[in-house]
Amino acid sequence: MHAPTIEKLIEQFEKLPGIGRKSAERIAFHVLQMPKKYADDMCEAIAEAKEKVVFCDCCQNLTDRSPCTICADDARDASVICVVETPKDVAAMEKMREYKGLYHVLHGALSPMDGIGPDELKIAPLLKRLSDDTVREVIMATNPTVQGEATAMYLCKLLKPLGVKVTRIAHGIPVGGDLEYADEVTLLRAMEGRREM
Amino acid sequence: MHAPTIEKLIEQFEKLPGIGRKSAERIAFHVLQMPKKYADDMCEAIAEAKEKVVFCDCCQNLTDRSPCTICADDARDASVICVVETPKDVAAMEKMREYKGLYHVLHGALSPMDGIGPDELKIAPLLKRLSDDTVREVIMATNPTVQGEATAMYLCKLLKPLGVKVTRIAHGIPVGGDLEYADEVTLLRAMEGRREM
Repeated sequence: MHAPTIEKLIEQFEKLPGIGRKSAERIAFHVLQMPKKYADDMCEAIAEAKEKVVFCDCCQNLTDRSPCTICADDARDASVICVVETPKDVAAMEKMREYKGLYHVLHGALSPMDGIGPDELKIAPLLKRLSDDTVREVIMATNPTVQGEATAMYLCKLLKPLGVKVTRIAHGIPVGGDLEYADEVTLLRAMEGRREM
Repeated sequence: MHAPTIEKLIEQFEKLPGIGRKSAERIAFHVLQMPKKYADDMCEAIAEAKEKVVFCDCCQNLTDRSPCTICADDARDASVICVVETPKDVAAMEKMREYKGLYHVLHGALSPMDGIGPDELKIAPLLKRLSDDTVREVIMATNPTVQGEATAMYLCKLLKPLGVKVTRIAHGIPVGGDLEYADEVTLLRAMEGRREM
């Protein structure tokens, strides 16, 4: 339908997450019609990111220098590690501006069906971080999905024998949410997690 | 929040049409975690497209060779030109597999509010195509928006004195659509365009 060069461009954009055929076409024609400098900037940003961005040696987050700014920050509490699935989760937690501990990014969750076992996750570097006695608490902030829960359980069993406190973030009715529209599992969690006022 | 290199990448994706902050983040992390070869392919496709894709000398469509495959195709009926707003419209028409005439891409529609007058559209090359007597009919297939209608009217007035037949594609209830949910303007057009059965 389109010229081969344009078709190739559309196919590249179609591979991106959340981008279907129509969006890919729209993006491709946008790229074709924008100033060349902008396209160059885009390619440069991609190339630079692919070249410079590495895993932080410590927390395994994506960063442009290792250790990352969070791990290198002496003001943060090195005795607490919050375990998350993805780098995006770190960004979400940081937006809260309350948590002062460190992170550990697993880069996924256990999912035997997809062939993701413990060896596919960044679990070994986490164990290494617990080898001295600095860390007192590990907070499991994996997603409340089957995979996220299984990962939290697995890690809990692995870490408890090391003498570290393992906690799980609370699940319940989101603030501003409506009880009426909460699903049963969320409601069950909210009840289980109730606290004295 | 993110490392500067990652932030820069997110900003580049955020500039694309239909991509908000969240989607841009998702795409950026996808790009960071995909094989380097894939990122290289993507940059190459962008660079190649920006370098090779030009306007067809004849129909002004985006193409990687001029004249484009449609204009160069002797099997097509050179006596009919279908005028559309964008290259995507050509692709949509071609999907129909019925139209055997040629196209002319205006690259926009008249919109005085946005500073788009006749000089900003590819109207001069269209007039040039009508200078000999090959073309008998010009079909206006601009969008049924205020801008598209104004453009069709403007071109109609410009072309009729040249002795060419100017037609407008039909507007009405889309096939598979529901009368109940059609807006008044569409319904009005459907009534106006009624034909004897």
